Parts: sequence; C-alpha cells; structure tokens
Amino acid sequence: MSRCRREQGSAVKFGPALMRQADQLAAFTEDAPRITRTYLSREHRQAADYLIALMTEAGMQAGIDALGNIVGRYAALDPAAPVVMTGSHQDSVRDAGRYDGLYGILSAIACVKDLHARGKRLPYTLEVVGFGDEEGVRFGVTLIGSKAMAGAFDPAWLDKSDANGVTMREAIRDFGGDPDAWPDVDRRGKLAAFVESHIEQGPVLLNEGLAVGVVTAIAGATRLKVTVTGLAGHAGTVPMGGRQDALTAASEMILSIEKYALDHSAEGGLVATVGMIEARPGAINVIPQDVGFSIDLRSGDDAARRRAVAALEGQLHQIAARRNVKVALNRFYDADAAPCDPTLQARFARAIAAQGIAVRHLPSGAGHDAMAFPALCPTAMLFVRCGNNGISHHPDEIMSAEDAEVSTRVLLDFFENYVPPPR
Amino acid sequence: MSRCRREQGSAVKFGPALMRQADQLAAFTEDAPRITRTYLSREHRQAADYLIALMTEAGMQAGIDALGNIVGRYAALDPAAPVVMTGSHQDSVRDAGRYDGLYGILSAIACVKDLHARGKRLPYTLEVVGFGDEEGVRFGVTLIGSKAMAGAFDPAWLDKSDANGVTMREAIRDFGGDPDAWPDVDRRGKLAAFVESHIEQGPVLLNEGLAVGVVTAIAGATRLKVTVTGLAGHAGTVPMGGRQDALTAASEMILSIEKYALDHSAEGGLVATVGMIEARPGAINVIPQDVGFSIDLRSGDDAARRRAVAALEGQLHQIAARRNVKVALNRFYDADAAPCDPTLQARFARAIAAQGIAVRHLPSGAGHDAMAFPALCPTAMLFVRCGNNGISHHPDEIMSAEDAEVSTRVLLDFFENYVPPPR
Repeated sequence: MSRCRREQGSAVKFGPALMRQADQLAAFTEDAPRITRTYLSREHRQAADYLIALMTEAGMQAGIDALGNIVGRYAALDPAAPVVMTGSHQDSVRDAGRYDGLYGILSAIACVKDLHARGKRLPYTLEVVGFGDEEGVRFGVTLIGSKAMAGAFDPAWLDKSDANGVTMREAIRDFGGDPDAWPDVDRRGKLAAFVESHIEQGPVLLNEGLAVGVVTAIAGATRLKVTVTGLAGHAGTVPMGGRQDALTAASEMILSIEKYALDHSAEGGLVATVGMIEARPGAINVIPQDVGFSIDLRSGDDAARRRAVAALEGQLHQIAARRNVKVALNRFYDADAAPCDPTLQARFARAIAAQGIAVRHLPSGAGHDAMAFPALCPTAMLFVRCGNNGISHHPDEIMSAEDAEVSTRVLLDFFENYVPPPR
Repeated sequence: MSRCRREQGSAVKFGPALMRQADQLAAFTEDAPRITRTYLSREHRQAADYLIALMTEAGMQAGIDALGNIVGRYAALDPAAPVVMTGSHQDSVRDAGRYDGLYGILSAIACVKDLHARGKRLPYTLEVVGFGDEEGVRFGVTLIGSKAMAGAFDPAWLDKSDANGVTMREAIRDFGGDPDAWPDVDRRGKLAAFVESHIEQGPVLLNEGLAVGVVTAIAGATRLKVTVTGLAGHAGTVPMGGRQDALTAASEMILSIEKYALDHSAEGGLVATVGMIEARPGAINVIPQDVGFSIDLRSGDDAARRRAVAALEGQLHQIAARRNVKVALNRFYDADAAPCDPTLQARFARAIAAQGIAVRHLPSGAGHDAMAFPALCPTAMLFVRCGNNGISHHPDEIMSAEDAEVSTRVLLDFFENYVPPPR
C-alpha cells in the first residue's frame, strides 16, 4: 500500500492539465486582457460549454440548470444512493486571477475523470457544480447559485438590475434559463455532503510551506461604519493643545483596532481591517472635522467576533471621550461563521496525511460557495496554497502545477474513501 | 489723563457702526446667502464703491489703483511726511465669514474718521488699503494686492486663468484697471511702516479672555505630501501578523506628528496638521496598499520648523521600516516666517495696556497681507478676538461689537502715538 502510494506520488497525473484548463478558461473574459466573467454573460456561456465538454469527457452527464449553474453528474450504480456535491463558482471579480472558483470545478472534474478511467464508481452520486454567481459583481447579490441550491434564493433578486438596466430575470431568460424555475434548483433534503476545493486567497499555507490545508470554518464577519466628529479649525491658528482633530482621533482608533486584532488573532483567526477612510473637509490647511472609516472584522469563532465588536466599541468611545470628539458606530453587516463538519475535516486530514503532508487546519477569512451549505448538509473545504504572498482577486494570483497535482490527489482520496452515513 | 481714558472707555464710539458696516459688506456676495467675494468680481467693485464712500466720508482721498486695490489717503500737513500704510483684504474665501480681512479696513477707516472729526492730522500720511486679493480663490495666487505693493508682483500671473478661462489680465481690464501698470503699484522705498488689524481666526485670545493681542510673527510654513506604500490583501485571508497595511502605518505616523507638535508647541507656536488623507484601493474588504496624506507645519520660529521637518522625516522612516512599508515625503511648499517689528509691537503693547488689557503676544499661524511687507518696511499686526471657538473662513465666524470697539481704540491709540523714525 505504501509502495503503491509512492508510485502514485511520483507520476504527474493532474497538475499540468489543470494549469492548461485554467489558462483556457481565462480566455473567456469580458474585458481582455483582463479577466472578468460575470453571471449570465456570453463568457459565462462559453465557460459553461467548455466545462460541460470536460465533464462529459470525464464520464459525467452534464448540463445547465434553470439559473445558469453548470452541473455534472457522476452517478452511483445504485439510483437510490445518496448525492454528494462538490464544486465552486465559474464567475470572477473584475480584473481577476484564473484560479479563484474555477480551480475547485476543474480539480473535481479531474478526479471524476480518473475514477471513470479506472471504471470506479462511488457509493454515492457525485455532482460537480460550477455555480453561476458567487462574487455578486453583476447584480450586487453574492452566492446566487449556491444559495439557490441551498433553498435560500430570494425571488425579489430577479428584479435587480445590472449596470445596463438589465434585470436578473431578463438575463436568465437571455441565457436560456428559466427565472421562474428557481424552486427547482433547491436541493434541500437531497444532499449528503458538500465539499469545495479552493485556492486559499491568503498567505498562511505559503508561509508555512504547505500545499494544502483543511478549513475549520468560513469566518463570520461584522462590518461597521465609524464616524468621528471633531471640530474644524485653521491649521495655522488653532494651537495643538486645544484641538478636536477628528483624524488624529481616528488614527488612534485605527491603531487600537489593529492592536486588539493582533492580541486576539488566535481566536478563530480573528482579523480586523480598516480599508476605507475619508476626512472632511479634506483641505491641507484645515483640521479635519469629520472622519469616516470602515471596519471589517472576521473570525471563525462567532463568540470571539462578538467580543471583539463589544471591546472595540468600548475602546473607540474611550478614545473619543479622552480626545473630546464624538464617535458613532453603525454595524451594517453581520454574518455568523459557517462551521465545517468535523467528520469531513477528519477525512480531508487523512487524505492530506496520506500525501505525506503535515495537516494544517485554518479558518477561511473569505466567503465561499460552501457558506451556503451547512444549513443543508455536512460541509467541508480544502484550501490550496496561493503563491505570490497570497494575492487573489488580482491578475497576480498564482497556483503551481505541483500544488494542483497534490491537492487533486487529496480531493480524489477524499472522494474514494468517503462513505456517506446511512440516512 | 486716566479720567479722560475712562470717559473715553465708557462711550461707545466704534463697535456698533463697524458691525453694521460688516453686515452691509456681506451683502456683496457672488453666491448669496453664502458670502463669497473674489478678486475683480462685480462684488469686489461693489465693496470698493462702498469702502470708497466710507473713506471719503472719513476725510480721505480715495480711489482704486491699477490692480484693483482700494486706497484711501489721509494726508499729513507736510507733503514730504512719511507714509504709513494700514489695511487688509477685501476678498474672501468661498462661504466665508464677514470679518476676515474687511474688519482691518473698516477699523482703520473708523480711526481716520475719528481723527478727521477732531481735526487731528498725524505726523505722517496714513493710507488705508483694501487689498484686492489675499485669499487667492479666483486665480490660485495669494496676496496679489499686497505683493504688488511690496514689489513682488510677478507679471506671469497676468496670464493665469480663472475657472471660466478668464485671464487675470482680462479681468483687470474688465474691472477698469490696467494690467500693464502693475509696476506703478510698487511702494518699495515709500513706506515708513505697515500695520494690519485682523480677526485672530483662532481661539487663543478667546480662551484667555482677551479682546486683542500683539502678533510676534506670521508663521513660516512647510507643506509635505507623504506617500505610504504597503501591500494590499484580502481583509479576511491575510492574518494580522503578516500584514503590510499602509493605513495602520499612516495612522501611527499621524499620531507621531501630533505628538511631536504637542511636545514642541512652545517653539514659535509650532503646529502640525494632517488635513487630507486617501487610502487606496479604498475597499471595505481590502487591506490598504497606498495611503497619501498631507502635513501642514507652521511656526513663528523658522529654526523650530526646520527641526520639526527633519525630526518628522526621521520618525516617519522609522515607523515605515518597523512596519515593513515604504514612505516617501515630498516637500512642496516652504515659506519662512515674517517677523513683526519689535518697536511697532511695543507701540501696540502700550496701546493695549492703555485700555487696561493684559498684553498678550502671539504668533499668527495663518498668512496675512502683512506677510508681504517686512521686506519693505517695519510691519506689525493687531489681533482681535474671534468668537465661536475661533472659527474663521466659515459663516460661523463672529466678532463682538465690544471687541470691535476696543480694538479700534487700540488701533487709534497706535496711530495717534506712533512717530515714524527720521529717515
């Protein structure tokens, strides 16, 4: 058995082909040479045709559902066997990389192709899905495909318009879908598990020299808008001692947010980011009167995130009081963490160990299609190392052929050894 | 003599009239109900007509020079007597208050009116000037009027255009002036002194309960653009420990700038202000890659300001190095302090003490017409208390009738008791 694994490990089966496929899919873009592929676009259709061809070649029955999700089915011999779903999203952000989303579809198809070539059927039907929309670029709604599968599609979304005034309903029709058939996409009660392979989009595995890792949870997130109100004044005429400078107050707040997150980073991988800031009136010779900034707070541990929100709120008010300015916090987004199933995590851990790789568990700070499924069925994610400092959502996003090889072997091991629990 | 002063102090001679005049001038605005009056506008002409009428009524010969400066002349009996100039600017910022600039013209006219009513001539010819432009709103050049008087007019300015494409040359002609006669406005070698009364535009006198103060120097200023370059990353996927966040680095820099200025505020009234900040890409879920911010640094003590620039440059580089980001400082403006003449300061101090007011010396952090004159003749400034926390360049700028009364008495005392040194 160990010799067998060694032989398997020495042959290159998946990596180079996956790299080629990712390159070919990158050509289906709305604004070449940049990569942008939004939901229900002509390029979505081109990507679907390409993926359906790959799926068919891999031995699957493949097609597109009513909402534009690409679905390939590798049926078990027993028509009553449970169904396991895998996959990720076909769409991209604007000016994207080529692995985010797509890699999870391609790697799964490669697994099926290998199973099929060996004439191996699984004790469950495996569905490989390319979700039509995860990024939400076109209609401002994220996770459209996976939420529809999870029974969380909101038909009000059909009336949302893109930048050209085209509604989602019209776009689905133009694509050849059927907007009114959204209930048919719902898979509640029909899935035994959902697993997703995805590029990490961060530097953790890269920094630790690991090709893959097991996701513990998709982090919950809280977003706040903070408004600091001081008193404007002439930069030359108001002595330092008497100022109520909204920007120096905001600077102290930003550092206190950073320090809190550094001190508590072990709590579910807590991170806090101030990505936007604006100072008004914003003149070189005027002390800022008003500063607005955003806070994006994430953790795989919901309790840790809630403690952080409460602690930061206290800290910011203390700083404001000491500096004689006002502060208001507006929490406008709150989403709990989506935990990954311990049994599925353990299965991925064994598959990783089988490749001779140390098993690293890590939370996912970014959102993924897998977020939609824990309410439906046991869910898990495999992360693949992201090169280039972990840059993603950017043309500089890279993944190596070696990591594609290893991570596909891990995914295949998972599929071959996973046994759905009896219903 | 002391009884006489007391009687004088009890009668209200100047304040209410000055308040009325300031209210009337506020009506000459380009965007009512806001107050905006730019150089060579129709409202500049209206203000000039109004001021010339006041000057004439006060016993002066009054007119407009080739560049639009309003000049009233209260001649000494001796045609060979030296000339002392006083006044301030007629123009305003956009959405201005009603005392900045204008008050210095009105208070001086009130002094002459009182002298004239008493049939009192001075041992010098007193010229009261309403400079056409100090704020620089229309053509982006400040101190046009006072610099022309000081022989520092640059004829290249005549080709500068306003927002509508009208050149300064055309605007001067349309106003009835003569752009080519700018050398005639030059008063080098012809002035014995320049004094200016001006609202403080800051809270120092207000906080100390004083109606007036003597300006020691108009602060020198250095302006820098700071650029911090870090590394962008997904707000959810890059752990706190590995970040190169340009905004948290900039926040630490802004606090270090504030601390330096607080620690060194005694050095010529040193102040430092970060009024503008921008973070890119500026998305809620992206760690800022680039942050730009401004520094405005002022002190009445040039050496202190130079030390501050050097110290801040060192501090910012230290912070950048420790945080693994890059910082670049671009110093794009540097102006030395304009010192006020000690003899004239002493004269103002005596005039203030004669009103029974404690003598407060303070630097001016803001620029004024008086900045143009130290190269030409002894120069001094009287500051008048600014209400409302010292707010200026804003409709909330206020001055009390009582302070107008007192400060005009001080200015009158100055004029009555000042004796120009023999040439």
